[in-house]
Amino acid sequence: MFELGVVYRNIIRAERGVADALAKLGSATVHEAMGRVGLLQPYMRPIYAGAQVSGTAVTVLLHPGDNWMMHVVAEQIQPGDIVVAAVTAECTDGYFGDLLATSFQARGARALVIDAGVRDVKTLQAMQFPVWSKCISSKGTVKATLGSVNIAVVCAGMLVTPGDVVVADDDGVVCVPAARAAQTLAAAQQRERAEGDKRAQLAAGVLGLDMYQMRAPLAAAGLRYVD
Amino acid sequence: MFELGVVYRNIIRAERGVADALAKLGSATVHEAMGRVGLLQPYMRPIYAGAQVSGTAVTVLLHPGDNWMMHVVAEQIQPGDIVVAAVTAECTDGYFGDLLATSFQARGARALVIDAGVRDVKTLQAMQFPVWSKCISSKGTVKATLGSVNIAVVCAGMLVTPGDVVVADDDGVVCVPAARAAQTLAAAQQRERAEGDKRAQLAAGVLGLDMYQMRAPLAAAGLRYVD
Amino acid sequence: MFELGVVYRNIIRAERGVADALAKLGSATVHEAMGRVGLLQPYMRPIYAGAQVSGTAVTVLLHPGDNWMMHVVAEQIQPGDIVVAAVTAECTDGYFGDLLATSFQARGARALVIDAGVRDVKTLQAMQFPVWSKCISSKGTVKATLGSVNIAVVCAGMLVTPGDVVVADDDGVVCVPAARAAQTLAAAQQRERAEGDKRAQLAAGVLGLDMYQMRAPLAAAGLRYVD
Amino acid sequence: MFELGVVYRNIIRAERGVADALAKLGSATVHEAMGRVGLLQPYMRPIYAGAQVSGTAVTVLLHPGDNWMMHVVAEQIQPGDIVVAAVTAECTDGYFGDLLATSFQARGARALVIDAGVRDVKTLQAMQFPVWSKCISSKGTVKATLGSVNIAVVCAGMLVTPGDVVVADDDGVVCVPAARAAQTLAAAQQRERAEGDKRAQLAAGVLGLDMYQMRAPLAAAGLRYVD
Amino acid sequence: MFELGVVYRNIIRAERGVADALAKLGSATVHEAMGRVGLLQPYMRPIYAGAQVSGTAVTVLLHPGDNWMMHVVAEQIQPGDIVVAAVTAECTDGYFGDLLATSFQARGARALVIDAGVRDVKTLQAMQFPVWSKCISSKGTVKATLGSVNIAVVCAGMLVTPGDVVVADDDGVVCVPAARAAQTLAAAQQRERAEGDKRAQLAAGVLGLDMYQMRAPLAAAGLRYVD
Amino acid sequence: MFELGVVYRNIIRAERGVADALAKLGSATVHEAMGRVGLLQPYMRPIYAGAQVSGTAVTVLLHPGDNWMMHVVAEQIQPGDIVVAAVTAECTDGYFGDLLATSFQARGARALVIDAGVRDVKTLQAMQFPVWSKCISSKGTVKATLGSVNIAVVCAGMLVTPGDVVVADDDGVVCVPAARAAQTLAAAQQRERAEGDKRAQLAAGVLGLDMYQMRAPLAAAGLRYVD
Repeated sequence: MFELGVVYRNIIRAERGVADALAKLGSATVHEAMGRVGLLQPYMRPIYAGAQVSGTAVTVLLHPGDNWMMHVVAEQIQPGDIVVAAVTAECTDGYFGDLLATSFQARGARALVIDAGVRDVKTLQAMQFPVWSKCISSKGTVKATLGSVNIAVVCAGMLVTPGDVVVADDDGVVCVPAARAAQTLAAAQQRERAEGDKRAQLAAGVLGLDMYQMRAPLAAAGLRYVD
Repeated sequence: MFELGVVYRNIIRAERGVADALAKLGSATVHEAMGRVGLLQPYMRPIYAGAQVSGTAVTVLLHPGDNWMMHVVAEQIQPGDIVVAAVTAECTDGYFGDLLATSFQARGARALVIDAGVRDVKTLQAMQFPVWSKCISSKGTVKATLGSVNIAVVCAGMLVTPGDVVVADDDGVVCVPAARAAQTLAAAQQRERAEGDKRAQLAAGVLGLDMYQMRAPLAAAGLRYVD
Repeated sequence: MFELGVVYRNIIRAERGVADALAKLGSATVHEAMGRVGLLQPYMRPIYAGAQVSGTAVTVLLHPGDNWMMHVVAEQIQPGDIVVAAVTAECTDGYFGDLLATSFQARGARALVIDAGVRDVKTLQAMQFPVWSKCISSKGTVKATLGSVNIAVVCAGMLVTPGDVVVADDDGVVCVPAARAAQTLAAAQQRERAEGDKRAQLAAGVLGLDMYQMRAPLAAAGLRYVD
Repeated sequence: MFELGVVYRNIIRAERGVADALAKLGSATVHEAMGRVGLLQPYMRPIYAGAQVSGTAVTVLLHPGDNWMMHVVAEQIQPGDIVVAAVTAECTDGYFGDLLATSFQARGARALVIDAGVRDVKTLQAMQFPVWSKCISSKGTVKATLGSVNIAVVCAGMLVTPGDVVVADDDGVVCVPAARAAQTLAAAQQRERAEGDKRAQLAAGVLGLDMYQMRAPLAAAGLRYVD
Repeated sequence: MFELGVVYRNIIRAERGVADALAKLGSATVHEAMGRVGLLQPYMRPIYAGAQVSGTAVTVLLHPGDNWMMHVVAEQIQPGDIVVAAVTAECTDGYFGDLLATSFQARGARALVIDAGVRDVKTLQAMQFPVWSKCISSKGTVKATLGSVNIAVVCAGMLVTPGDVVVADDDGVVCVPAARAAQTLAAAQQRERAEGDKRAQLAAGVLGLDMYQMRAPLAAAGLRYVD
Repeated sequence: MFELGVVYRNIIRAERGVADALAKLGSATVHEAMGRVGLLQPYMRPIYAGAQVSGTAVTVLLHPGDNWMMHVVAEQIQPGDIVVAAVTAECTDGYFGDLLATSFQARGARALVIDAGVRDVKTLQAMQFPVWSKCISSKGTVKATLGSVNIAVVCAGMLVTPGDVVVADDDGVVCVPAARAAQTLAAAQQRERAEGDKRAQLAAGVLGLDMYQMRAPLAAAGLRYVD
């Protein structure tokens, strides 16, 4: 948050197998499995529908209207990473377009999560390089001021530490700390297994009121029915 | 608005045939036919494009971050209903996902209109269960506090009384009071019939200025043309 | 900005060939070629993805909740124009729907850019008449108060003078003054030619740090690497 | 919400003594006494600090940019009333200034609550005529379109029925239905009496944890202390 | 709007006597006298209450997070000027504090109007140097990129040309083009003279309905009274 | 950010003398001395003007609509602390009023910084207990769900670790990590000493252009003057 002008080259990434396995569970299930923490603010939206990814975070702290550090972070990307970009103040500029996406993709990045704007979105979709961002904007940026790479950042209200797992899909973006990734995966898989049976019951017309045994606690809380 | 902890089981729904017939006219035409009232605020957006529905409202009042009453309202759904969910304070949490949608759909609900967030949107689209919401969010909710079902609620700035007709499409969501549904349908159908001829004239290059005979009133209002 | 109740019939449009050629370069490249000015605020979004247009601006100044002047501006449209609509105060009403679109399209308009709401968006997409707007709303408008046509307006924070070139795509909307259109086109084309080679290098794994020779200036600015 | 062009002259106001007595309890205590419902959205702010009022609601529904009905509602004001103004769509215009305030004050109104803008705020403060509004704006309005007076309206997200009690102070605006005014007053007074003793204990350093006996339920919920 | 890196030293200021005389009429009356145009968006708020000024505009176009040009514009200030600052993209940084205010005041500036943030507001109030701004922020800016001075700018949605008259008070900020300043002053004074008599009548209990003879047009528009 | 249901009792507070000395330098100078990082988002505003404080952070993580943990954090307050409260999702409820303020003040807290709402603001001002918050709201909260005390939190976009120094005034709120507090104080004092001389020069009419020797770099950057 506070250190400017530094690039940390060695970060401890969450275990690859765990990081990769979280994608198919999706951000909502992972968020529940975390105990309902870890979600970036819901204004973060995908630039196109349908992408669902997970990966290890490399982070970059930018200044408003300045994307110089995006080129610096590119060098730190390893296959399976997701770049998480924060800005020191509110900004809607388009920090990222198809050229940077080509570079990120060549380095093995799976996605960008940026608390600012992005552009060339039609080309990005054609390249299948997904971005979750605050907005879309044609406005370009200068290259004048140092930020940092691979420090802890706050992106869209959530602390992201380099090496954490990021899970992103149409429902939003969740950050899972590296140290909790394995247990979160286990909890999420457990949760998902339980959902199949519930879905079948609900589809057959069973009410959640009965399936979850809510009638007694609702009555205890004082719920009245009026005919 | 003011009564908590109560479920009204018997509500007077608008006539089924009228409620069903309003869908194909669309929210814009119905809104005009109402005399330009009844629209929920335009921040209410569909989670996927193309759905166009109408139905009778069953309502639910929720608390921030608590979706307990969603299970209570499920039991009150009858085929052809649309659930309208209001919250007692601003909230962006994801109150509703694919499990609840499975239950709502099994009960015969056609859609959900919620002044808060929703999740599992990719699955909801696959299920063809449309939702109009303020936002999309992975964040789940607790089940701890009583709200109410089938009381009058304010949803996105509009009063919705149980049994009213809700019309929703890509342009937004309109509420038609049950007592005015039949006359609104007639007015909307009348309006739509008139549009076909107008469209043909305009496509042929006739100007609205002439078709609507606006030149005289514009001149009377003082409009000047400068060459 | 300040003159009400007047329609200027004779405006100097940017040269047709230049105006038409800017579309394929896109708003981001054109914005860069302008020196990073000219962008309308990024809340202006297309009602459907994929449209990419340019054309000469005819302008209209509207009042909140009143679309009377939309019919007046229709008569001033020439083939290749884009209508740019500003409002004297914040408004989200749906000023424009399929009937007006039919008329605008019959007159040769390529698009509408409006700092307010629009409706009938499903039909507009079927007609392939693109609109960039602040929002989508079913709410209609009255026809009661005079605005102006073809005066300079501020639309979404940007000054647009009649005859300027408007370039709009999925990334946003840029205004190019008529007097600068030719030089902007040349600069944009130059920029685009340079991008092909860069893209190939980046795809091959060359870093922007090396391609743009950024290592020395970054070091000079004090960037530190920590292992 | 839905009826335009009508003025209801006879409304049932909440009992005067009850309506008047709620002011000194304040909006926060009244809101709690209501069971935490009834609050208008917190973007409603007083134009100057320190005013604290209650009174019976007379309501007016306005159109965007049109304050014609403000003159119509003036005639319906009785001493002790508070005017509650809603608009059919989002609008920031300044509907109300010192002339209308002079008229409202002469009729006996205590305040205005308006989900839009207001102007002449320096004069309004000098007159000690308080207003709670969404914003402040110099922009004036036309007088062209009919709304209604003394129908139920939604103002800043809350249903207000004519004759309800409105309580407003620096913390916000609460609506108390006429039928619940007496019991709400009793509950609020009860609540306030209890607060004096609590305040003394807390000032003496007693913790809420002990005063409210929260330690056991916190432990039961699983709270852990780490040294 | 579009020219960067230039300072225009010679601008045509509105006549001093006219520019000075508009202050006491206030932004609301001036806005009406202009025909209800010219208002900057109402999010522009004074940093302290009670200031009421008018003066001739000198303009500056800034980049996000960069206040270099504020020092350039200082040299162009003449006594009686108001500095109007626009930014090329949304920014909330604090571009202006007590040092710059000391310089501006020494040059004879009466106020700053800035579509961004300001800081040191307690000192600015002590100095009685009023600022109308979008927000207040401690965040400082760099000095790296050229903007322009004394070009036409769009500030908070309104076109401001150097030499125009700016009128600002607790109700907001209005821009009066130099060419229309004299006639606007006359119209505003006329308007204010008429208000005194109206105020007296309204204070005596006369209704606007009668004073403005609105009953007949309201009835003609269809207004119904229900007892 | 991620750990729920835990209270850390032993935190390392920044040195008292340093923490106390930062108040009089103010948030803007401290922010500059930090290298322009550390600022909470500028929507955080004081509930009354003029308060200027610094102190050591004790932190609390809350859930939307639930202030249970506010009582838990009260016990952890030591004289000279400032409570920093974050919420797991957007919420505008009034979490804090005069009773809690009485308790906090009795424990020695100097202020509250909360990314949510507060109420009883008139009483809080009378008590001279300052609060910086996102909004003001009468709406109360329940006591049902565990958060945490003295974990690292993100408040209004900024990471705050227990024991950090918080500096707050009319310009906003800055967080200084404990480890950097002493050097930040030295830098801020140095900066302030330099300002006195600059202010005198600027008041005497010297331009920043000359005082900061900006003319050469501006010319080098290409600035043109036009007469």
